[in-house]
Amino acid sequence: MPGRPEQSPTSAVWETSPAAALRVRPGFDLAGLDRRSTPGWTAGKSAGKALLSAHGDRLSELQERLFADGRTGGDRSVLLVLQGMDTAGKGGIVRHVVGLVDPQGVQHHAFGAPTEEERSQHYLWRVRRALPEPGYLGVFDRSHYEDVLIVRVKELVPESEWSQRYDEINAFEEEVAASGTRIVKAALFVSLDEQRERLAKRLERPDKHWKYDPSDIDARLEWPRYQEAYQAVLDRTSTDVAPWHVVPADRKWYARLAISQLLLDTFEDLDLGWPRAEFDVEHEKARLAAS
Amino acid sequence: MPGRPEQSPTSAVWETSPAAALRVRPGFDLAGLDRRSTPGWTAGKSAGKALLSAHGDRLSELQERLFADGRTGGDRSVLLVLQGMDTAGKGGIVRHVVGLVDPQGVQHHAFGAPTEEERSQHYLWRVRRALPEPGYLGVFDRSHYEDVLIVRVKELVPESEWSQRYDEINAFEEEVAASGTRIVKAALFVSLDEQRERLAKRLERPDKHWKYDPSDIDARLEWPRYQEAYQAVLDRTSTDVAPWHVVPADRKWYARLAISQLLLDTFEDLDLGWPRAEFDVEHEKARLAAS
Repeated sequence: MPGRPEQSPTSAVWETSPAAALRVRPGFDLAGLDRRSTPGWTAGKSAGKALLSAHGDRLSELQERLFADGRTGGDRSVLLVLQGMDTAGKGGIVRHVVGLVDPQGVQHHAFGAPTEEERSQHYLWRVRRALPEPGYLGVFDRSHYEDVLIVRVKELVPESEWSQRYDEINAFEEEVAASGTRIVKAALFVSLDEQRERLAKRLERPDKHWKYDPSDIDARLEWPRYQEAYQAVLDRTSTDVAPWHVVPADRKWYARLAISQLLLDTFEDLDLGWPRAEFDVEHEKARLAAS
Repeated sequence: MPGRPEQSPTSAVWETSPAAALRVRPGFDLAGLDRRSTPGWTAGKSAGKALLSAHGDRLSELQERLFADGRTGGDRSVLLVLQGMDTAGKGGIVRHVVGLVDPQGVQHHAFGAPTEEERSQHYLWRVRRALPEPGYLGVFDRSHYEDVLIVRVKELVPESEWSQRYDEINAFEEEVAASGTRIVKAALFVSLDEQRERLAKRLERPDKHWKYDPSDIDARLEWPRYQEAYQAVLDRTSTDVAPWHVVPADRKWYARLAISQLLLDTFEDLDLGWPRAEFDVEHEKARLAAS
């Protein structure tokens, strides 16, 4: 951070954990969010990057414990739900945070515009099918929240319909949580200016053209309506079992650090040991020696 | 390698590419395979690890090009098929080689004992469902080859049935290849002694118990029959569109290096550029500036 010395990368810690600093509380006002801010973290960028990198080993070990738990009859899983406008950095979270753990233990699902088959079903149908199995870290890149975001902004269904969905989603997530899944919801917010820069880069570089879609500009033109729709999501679907975390995302390193910490805390809180052997270890050693 | 100086990690290269050194040719004899050997590589372990690590960036870029191709109408994909006895190191390949690329572009599937639903279908049914979509790197941890390996050894279906499967599998893979999928088949082989050591480690360490299954010993006792079944696989299903590569796997670093090189060469051979913009770049720049 300009004008202040950075702490040593290896000793830097959160002043306030992101679970507390980013959690949406009643009365939260999205319009007032400084999207270049780094809530809870004052140690600067290089210390932040160092901590993210340092999270890799512990996150890997805890993810493996979860996987082992799932393989031995456990019912627990973790689901990371990522929301954000185009260029908010959801893909970078998957690459740089989820990429820290063993790909065997990850079930990643990107939700695009629904297919014809999906449109013929209840909007939660495709979401249920994509839920992580026991033992897995599930990742939703976009999610059922699109059904109250783009659907609301573009009026893809009548208000009488989408307005019911907030309660439905809460009931759905409560059911998912009760079945053993920890839900970590993170909404990434970039500023209009930062988004312009990121889109400009996609237009400048031929290796980024494929990531650009002319409809991204349409969404920019409807920015206030999207912010309003996000505000409603945060107001109505931040619950005890599945609270929202609002992540200022103009600084990519901060968003990645914050979400890695949210995940790490969630895994730590599961308090998983290694499964106990369901066989007689000494007997098996003897069998192995004789084989 | 004992007794010879190692080359500088950054300059070491293959003497023979693994695509050539490991490819199964007519008359290949599995019994003669030295499972501690490092075919094509004489530069030693630390140089091998350095090259594996150096592969990360290029493999990531090529995987992203494939993904971009898939997002813009391309039909290509890559499928890595991993086979090997327990402890051969398939999981390590996924973690340390597949883990080099963006998890968003990977579709990983581990094939266990078939479920009741799967058993009620043709054995290739579950395999077809798990094939990678266009743009993805698919990974099979075990595969349809189990249907001529464990199924043959344990006589789970009559010989009249499994003996038909080699030709069926070849026809299936030819069809998959024709649809745009590059198939990379790698069979990892550890020695009986090395397997004993790896199983012993799983029994020693409580954090590895969950990976141990008493049936692993049963498979050891049937080692010769499994080797015979693998020999038949290599003899009958190493085809031009989907050749087998036999990977000596007593040295984990070698197996990982070799398979990373096989993948890298496959991606290079796709010769993918970045997709051309399907929009008017200058027009979009103007729209962006005005938004």
